[in-house]
Amino acid sequence: MGAAILSDLLTEVLIPASAVVGISFALMQWVLVSKVRLLPSEGDAAGTGKNGYSEYLIDEEEGLNDHNVVVKCAEIQRAISEVRSVCVKFHAQKKCRFRSSLAVSCKATAVADPTCSLLAYSIKKLNVLLASNLAISDIEAKVFCSASFDTLCCPHSVTELVLGSFDTLCCLVNGICKAGTSLTMYPNGEITKQLFCFASIESENIFPSFSLNLGATSFLFTEYQYVGIFMAIFAVLIFLFLGSVEGFSTKSQPCTYSKDKTCKPALANAIFSTLSFLLGGVTSVVSGFLGMKIATYANARTTLEARKGVGKAFITAFRSGAVMGFLLAANGLLVLFISINSFKLYYGDDWEGLFEAITGYGLGGSSMALFGRVGGGIYTKAADVGADLVGKVERNIPEDDPRNPAVIADNVGDNVGDIAGMGSDLFGSYAESSCAALVVASISSFGINHDLTAMLYPLLISSMGIIVCLITTLFATDFFEIKAVKEIEPSLKRQLIISTVLMTAGIALVSWVALPSTFTIFNFGTQKSVKNWELFICVAIGLWAGLVIGFVTEYYTSNAYSPVQDVADSCRTGAATNVIFGLALGYKSVIIPIFAIAVSIFVSFSLAAMYGIAVAALGMLSTIATGLAIDAYGPISDNAGGIAEMAGMSHRIRERTDALDAAGNTTAAIGKGFAIGSAALVSLALFGAFVSRAAIPAVDVLTPKVFIGLLVGAMLPYWFSAMTMKSVGSAALKMVEEVRRQFNTIPGLMEGTARPDYTNCVKISTDASIKEMIPPGALVMLTPLVVGTLFGVETLSGVLAGSLVSGVQIAISASNTGGAWDNAKKYIEAGASEHAKSLGPKGSDPHKAAVIGDTIGDPLKDTSGPSLNILIKLMAVESLVFAPFFATHGGLLFKLF
Amino acid sequence: MGAAILSDLLTEVLIPASAVVGISFALMQWVLVSKVRLLPSEGDAAGTGKNGYSEYLIDEEEGLNDHNVVVKCAEIQRAISEVRSVCVKFHAQKKCRFRSSLAVSCKATAVADPTCSLLAYSIKKLNVLLASNLAISDIEAKVFCSASFDTLCCPHSVTELVLGSFDTLCCLVNGICKAGTSLTMYPNGEITKQLFCFASIESENIFPSFSLNLGATSFLFTEYQYVGIFMAIFAVLIFLFLGSVEGFSTKSQPCTYSKDKTCKPALANAIFSTLSFLLGGVTSVVSGFLGMKIATYANARTTLEARKGVGKAFITAFRSGAVMGFLLAANGLLVLFISINSFKLYYGDDWEGLFEAITGYGLGGSSMALFGRVGGGIYTKAADVGADLVGKVERNIPEDDPRNPAVIADNVGDNVGDIAGMGSDLFGSYAESSCAALVVASISSFGINHDLTAMLYPLLISSMGIIVCLITTLFATDFFEIKAVKEIEPSLKRQLIISTVLMTAGIALVSWVALPSTFTIFNFGTQKSVKNWELFICVAIGLWAGLVIGFVTEYYTSNAYSPVQDVADSCRTGAATNVIFGLALGYKSVIIPIFAIAVSIFVSFSLAAMYGIAVAALGMLSTIATGLAIDAYGPISDNAGGIAEMAGMSHRIRERTDALDAAGNTTAAIGKGFAIGSAALVSLALFGAFVSRAAIPAVDVLTPKVFIGLLVGAMLPYWFSAMTMKSVGSAALKMVEEVRRQFNTIPGLMEGTARPDYTNCVKISTDASIKEMIPPGALVMLTPLVVGTLFGVETLSGVLAGSLVSGVQIAISASNTGGAWDNAKKYIEAGASEHAKSLGPKGSDPHKAAVIGDTIGDPLKDTSGPSLNILIKLMAVESLVFAPFFATHGGLLFKLF
Repeated sequence: MGAAILSDLLTEVLIPASAVVGISFALMQWVLVSKVRLLPSEGDAAGTGKNGYSEYLIDEEEGLNDHNVVVKCAEIQRAISEVRSVCVKFHAQKKCRFRSSLAVSCKATAVADPTCSLLAYSIKKLNVLLASNLAISDIEAKVFCSASFDTLCCPHSVTELVLGSFDTLCCLVNGICKAGTSLTMYPNGEITKQLFCFASIESENIFPSFSLNLGATSFLFTEYQYVGIFMAIFAVLIFLFLGSVEGFSTKSQPCTYSKDKTCKPALANAIFSTLSFLLGGVTSVVSGFLGMKIATYANARTTLEARKGVGKAFITAFRSGAVMGFLLAANGLLVLFISINSFKLYYGDDWEGLFEAITGYGLGGSSMALFGRVGGGIYTKAADVGADLVGKVERNIPEDDPRNPAVIADNVGDNVGDIAGMGSDLFGSYAESSCAALVVASISSFGINHDLTAMLYPLLISSMGIIVCLITTLFATDFFEIKAVKEIEPSLKRQLIISTVLMTAGIALVSWVALPSTFTIFNFGTQKSVKNWELFICVAIGLWAGLVIGFVTEYYTSNAYSPVQDVADSCRTGAATNVIFGLALGYKSVIIPIFAIAVSIFVSFSLAAMYGIAVAALGMLSTIATGLAIDAYGPISDNAGGIAEMAGMSHRIRERTDALDAAGNTTAAIGKGFAIGSAALVSLALFGAFVSRAAIPAVDVLTPKVFIGLLVGAMLPYWFSAMTMKSVGSAALKMVEEVRRQFNTIPGLMEGTARPDYTNCVKISTDASIKEMIPPGALVMLTPLVVGTLFGVETLSGVLAGSLVSGVQIAISASNTGGAWDNAKKYIEAGASEHAKSLGPKGSDPHKAAVIGDTIGDPLKDTSGPSLNILIKLMAVESLVFAPFFATHGGLLFKLF
Repeated sequence: MGAAILSDLLTEVLIPASAVVGISFALMQWVLVSKVRLLPSEGDAAGTGKNGYSEYLIDEEEGLNDHNVVVKCAEIQRAISEVRSVCVKFHAQKKCRFRSSLAVSCKATAVADPTCSLLAYSIKKLNVLLASNLAISDIEAKVFCSASFDTLCCPHSVTELVLGSFDTLCCLVNGICKAGTSLTMYPNGEITKQLFCFASIESENIFPSFSLNLGATSFLFTEYQYVGIFMAIFAVLIFLFLGSVEGFSTKSQPCTYSKDKTCKPALANAIFSTLSFLLGGVTSVVSGFLGMKIATYANARTTLEARKGVGKAFITAFRSGAVMGFLLAANGLLVLFISINSFKLYYGDDWEGLFEAITGYGLGGSSMALFGRVGGGIYTKAADVGADLVGKVERNIPEDDPRNPAVIADNVGDNVGDIAGMGSDLFGSYAESSCAALVVASISSFGINHDLTAMLYPLLISSMGIIVCLITTLFATDFFEIKAVKEIEPSLKRQLIISTVLMTAGIALVSWVALPSTFTIFNFGTQKSVKNWELFICVAIGLWAGLVIGFVTEYYTSNAYSPVQDVADSCRTGAATNVIFGLALGYKSVIIPIFAIAVSIFVSFSLAAMYGIAVAALGMLSTIATGLAIDAYGPISDNAGGIAEMAGMSHRIRERTDALDAAGNTTAAIGKGFAIGSAALVSLALFGAFVSRAAIPAVDVLTPKVFIGLLVGAMLPYWFSAMTMKSVGSAALKMVEEVRRQFNTIPGLMEGTARPDYTNCVKISTDASIKEMIPPGALVMLTPLVVGTLFGVETLSGVLAGSLVSGVQIAISASNTGGAWDNAKKYIEAGASEHAKSLGPKGSDPHKAAVIGDTIGDPLKDTSGPSLNILIKLMAVESLVFAPFFATHGGLLFKLF
């Protein structure tokens, strides 16, 4: 056997230390993002020449003196004021500074009236518009609070402000607005009652994003209310089911695997499983929420940075993604570490019971992720589909045009679905793979010999991952700089390669120092002898399989390669061929990932049984911080583009954000690939743990109980997808009709002289997502309970295996099909090659066909696809948690007959 | 044990007798179809009043004197003559009769020049047009053979004929055409050189369809050439692989299951397996070919009957379907029966070897079916998609309009894909389930005790099925009559119910007389005791599961119910929501069929192990004659509609054929449901037989070899679908561009004054289907060989189970999604309800969206979906055939490492 090199004490220090390093790094990135300046350098900030136009900006920006925008300004202002007049109150702190000729800033805090949650969503519109006016946070506050000017720091003499894009900001005094006049500033911060329009303002210490995500926040809070109720009920269920295994006895009992030892009572398992379930749920919620906060904080800054060039914008978006990635990875690790150590106070040497109870952590994490993905997915895609169908297809107005009534709901959705959902999802995978590894380890030699360092090997891998990703991130933000659009994708790909290469060395190191040279792993009743280098191979193969899946996903969803270009080309003959090609592409993209997963499973299974699979999954997730960074980068760029459009920024800015977004779609697809690949491994590991815990000797396909489970299990992803897609479709249908109604009944809406009613659209998305997330959620949560209770563990094993092998295929193909359609559309819009030009421009027939494909892909890639990997993981982890109950009381139906 | 009531001799008589009854009944139906009269009664035929217009027809038909059609006539004639002038030669027999004033007929035989296969396809255009002129087969022949009038029986004096629709047929003499003039006939059959146009002609003993299906026939012959090469190669492979098991030794060997007995050498198995493989292939080809012949014979008659009313048309279409159903069922049974008896001459008492060799029959049948389904599916859908995309969506011309250059390819495709493909497919299922049952029975007490009657129980069930279906058919054709459009669907549904109820009694009878009261069934190494009533339950549950699947399919694909109406409603908001709703519908439609299959599997598996599954599959297929009848009815009606449209028949006729077609789409979907449900059961039975024969103790999911097989197996249907859909998409792309090119470059095409170039479109479909059927075919055929040889039988078991549970879901959802889209479109077009009217009429935006959905559904429901059930069956049966080789030499890769 031989002891590990790393001492237990050092392990107990290193893990939390890495987590703290990760959190610190995330905060540092945040600070860097928030320090973004609008003028190129501090030195230039003092210069007052050219009325505040820096040469740098003039060089980059154009169309500042366009008089037409004034009309638009007035329109947007009315949209804003309507919101303000009803139920949003902003309290601005009187902390203002004027810097240089045009610098004016103040800190404002915004509070939405909680009694009026519906209209609070509309703040998103306001926020987004103001976000493009990032630098004038003072004025932003002022508009809100025009009813109470005295709470504001900014000139009282201005009675009304008209906000347009940052570049075309103008003020309206006494009902007269004129653009192009420079602002006269006075040293004491007063502005006379004169007309003024100005181009750019520098500011410092601004907190524009404070109110930026109120829309998304409000939705999440509503969602969390419902989910909270579910959590409470399910927590009770867990307690009752697990407690009933031994009739709520408080007596200690013989251990399941080491019959000669005494373990804690089943009641303790019930209590601690419930506890860890709640803990996992809360951590997941926090993960998702944090991600969303960061994203909404970053999107407007990305837009502004896009004015300086694509490189700056990229770094801003990427850093913001990194904040989320590191916070999540470190947070998940820390909470798990603390939980284990706290639970150990009660459990002591009963590691078997301890780590069984810890599995609840994974269940809690994934349950939340399910609702986040499904609810958020329905929210965002109903809005997106609705907005696109009428706006882009029928009315021929650009994406994210503020005239589109559904545009606000769409932007809110990007944050709640893609960011909060993805954060929860990957957190869930991470928690579950750790739990699966730990529960198997606890009944292997690590647990039996109470070898803490080896026991915590999964956490050490994650700790190493944080450090590796930290170094990797520097390659994107500090060591290299993006200078052109075409460098974006290679840079993101480099992230994947660098992190994988470094992590391979990291895993080798951890395996060498943390593991005994030989040990035994529990393998369905027997103990299999494993060497430390074999475990290294298990983790490494998972890691590299992740890279392969990432690259294949990229190949099939990036418009730099022929698959997406073929799909774009098929738009020439209309929407139908586009859909056929897109579906075929998705199906085809399944092949290599499945082989990659199969090889990792075979190797790691052969080397270290189910523990091998679990650590392979952990290997794939070990670079989660980098994976999340490039993944979150996508929606941030998408939102940045939306802000640029809504703010009426110039075409060049929009082109840059579109380029960022196109790369973002690919990275989002890569992220989903990772999520699915790891979900497959995690589910299998959990499945193995479940089988071990339920003491099933073999899952023989050739027994009727197992086979029908397999068949029905393979059907579940379809059932689930049918529910989620129908939900999106129904909600989108309502959305389309509402948007059409507004365009038809509100005079002047198309001309931009009248305001759309954003509120109604937001309400449709909200209602739909809350209402519709219940049935699919119930399907996933109840299936293991019903099958396990009525049909027993054999059938449940079949269901798990069936849903795993079937779900992983649909999930990959749905995500990639959607990603390909999205990028095929962007390929046509960008018109970067002769081929692409021949299909475009925007509004051409092929482009319209591409938009239809993109719209169909929305629910596939952002609702049903990504939800499926939660389905397979969640059913497995739930079965694992309830395994003692099913093993004792399950199979009622067969017992009756 | 107790012997069966039925003696062996009687069994040997009853089975072929039933087959002969089935064939006779089919021929009788054919005669009835061919006796269809155009005038309502024989008595009226002699009447010469009203220039041959019967009152009945006038009452039903209108617009006979429309002068505009003359222009069209000229156009169509040019299309025809072009073809004729190049390479089609018709030899007409000089056997003519003139009856009544307008009756003129002659028998003509047509021979396509084999050196000019390309243009031979174009005959289809001619054929279809002529089909609508069914009664004037003489003139039809004349047009072809205008270069050699002396071979014709019809008036030489007419130098040129202009063919339009039947109703507007007119003749052009010396370049002058005039409509509305009655034809003057002379007793000696001469027609003077006068102008004439006429409305309807009665004829007798005509053979109009002789040349009707030359287009389809030519394609099939080309396809069969390629498939023939494949068959030859694969036959050699079978011989080599199976022969090599014992090193081509001619020595007798101990039996696999009864070690104490001596069985025939492995070489005999190789030879007879190869033989039965070829036999199965040929029978499958004949089945498909016959089906197609019958369908093309019937479609034009259905159109003509539609002029009399919907009821008459229904009976014609249904009888024609019945011809196919009974011929196939009886044919399959007869060939199998004869093969068994012939092989027995060599095998004698070695039933184990005998029935092992017979499994090649299933393999041969399914291999052919694969190519038929895939090649035919690509052919038909490339043409269909291409025709619809430009014609209906862009040019806004009706479906099947003769101006559309792809319309001929489309009509040819309906026959080669839906009819020939479906015929081969169901024949394959039938052959395989019989083989699976027989191979298990041969090692059960039936085989061991040489109880012939019990051994042939599967064939007796099929015999009973023929009798039951015979009675059932009378309910549709004789006992009841359809009078209104709304009665069509109920009548078809009644067929399903009646046949199922009667068959239940039939099964009970067969089980009672043919089975000993107790016997044993081989169950993975042990013998399980089974009672005869238990086997009855197995067969019956399969039968009733088929009914459930049929009804669920009907519910999800008929536009009488809310699912399709919801999909239609979603067209209101455009194509994207239509696609989303359609996909969701398909996914949802999987649920109940899967539960139905799961229940049948569980019950039959529990009662009689793998034999139970096999006979459950047989139960589902026992009413195959009825199933095929209502299934073939669909494409026949579809073609009838096409003919009506091309012939320029009135709107009312088209409405009737559309109503038939809508019901036909549903029945086609029901047929596909049956095909898939039975395929699932068949595959499982074959899988079980394979596992038994390969002597695998258990297929434990929790071993890496099996699990990776399961995962990769579940991926195969996606890979396969990607190939087939991409093929259809690519071919459709070419088709669309060709059609667009023709519309853009041929002046007067849209106005109907110029001819499209049908030939090019036919060539595109032909080339695409022949070229593209190779890769998916290779995937299916090679996978078991590669996996079995390299990875061994455990992994192969996993692959089979994975592809089964995954493929069945995709197949069901793809078929139903496509069927639903098709009927949603028809729902809008028909405008039968207030709701439907609000979405229409043709050409409205919702209708355009519905057409896009329909187009996307085409490859799903007719190419990739139905091909998948062949994939799962074929891999299983191939594994079974090669099992001895894999068991001996398989798993090379693992042996090496």
